[in-house]
Amino acid sequence: MSKAIKQNLADSKKMSAELFCLTYGAMVTEMLKDYEDPKDVTVQLDKMGFNMGTRLADDFLAKNANVPRCVDTRQIADVLCRNAIPCYLGVSATASSWSSGDREFIITLESNPLTELVQVPPNLVSAGLSYSQMIAGAIRGALEAVHYKVYASAADSGANTEIRIRFDQVLKDSLPAGEDD
Amino acid sequence: MSKAIKQNLADSKKMSAELFCLTYGAMVTEMLKDYEDPKDVTVQLDKMGFNMGTRLADDFLAKNANVPRCVDTRQIADVLCRNAIPCYLGVSATASSWSSGDREFIITLESNPLTELVQVPPNLVSAGLSYSQMIAGAIRGALEAVHYKVYASAADSGANTEIRIRFDQVLKDSLPAGEDD
Repeated sequence: MSKAIKQNLADSKKMSAELFCLTYGAMVTEMLKDYEDPKDVTVQLDKMGFNMGTRLADDFLAKNANVPRCVDTRQIADVLCRNAIPCYLGVSATASSWSSGDREFIITLESNPLTELVQVPPNLVSAGLSYSQMIAGAIRGALEAVHYKVYASAADSGANTEIRIRFDQVLKDSLPAGEDD
Repeated sequence: MSKAIKQNLADSKKMSAELFCLTYGAMVTEMLKDYEDPKDVTVQLDKMGFNMGTRLADDFLAKNANVPRCVDTRQIADVLCRNAIPCYLGVSATASSWSSGDREFIITLESNPLTELVQVPPNLVSAGLSYSQMIAGAIRGALEAVHYKVYASAADSGANTEIRIRFDQVLKDSLPAGEDD
């Protein structure tokens, strides 16, 4: 584990990633029973993530007063990969595949605590389940809390998870809308 | 954070307790929508915990080859409070209120990562929701995996969470039954 991640984790209470992984798995299993369509589970995970992200943004800003205000998507990606993701997921991440004049990029998680002990059945994936969509939703929620509207989707492939981020607009003079279901 | 907890956490991958707390909250909220009776949510949290506990027991035994085999409930309580709970929840715990010839005791969590950022509405508690029952279920599942059948129930009161454990019997010559719903 790198020094930066250790430092970020030190600022926050810690617990076992295994327990989190199993809890998340139990939650998704529960949701798959309740919703007929795996696509609806993905939508729901995204909403949950969004709501969590708005709260995590507050938590993050309170604990990281020294992180400078971002002025472009490269800086946003940098704070996500170097600070926020290591702090909350305990793993490092990298941004790459920049396109559309830096408006789109992909964050690759070095490993994904959500999928560590889990085998997501391929038929659910082809039916539209994005198992790790909660992470994408949380990034979307956290960025909206600081007035950046983005689209975010997660894709798991083997041990790797990629979060594709597409920047939409800067939200001016408005508080984040909140997103209930 | 004590040295023992740091050591236990070092053996396991770590992540933010805040993220876990919000995820758990989202899951319980989801379940409260699906089940009409909060008591049913408690039952469901207990079952999920049980299934997770059987897996965590394997994980725990694999990582703690040096923990001696327990021969009485005092030793079981000791391993739970000094090793297992610090390892997975990242908090310390104490056992007390021994009764019925050491067959019953209460584990008090020093703090509870599940309830850290959450206000459980009192009307749901009086209607039978035991918000932290997943922890009690996980202890029940973990102990059943090592052939100790116990009853376990959780009660949150303010920042404190108490898990009441009642020893039932030693399960002989049988694999843990598994518990599906």
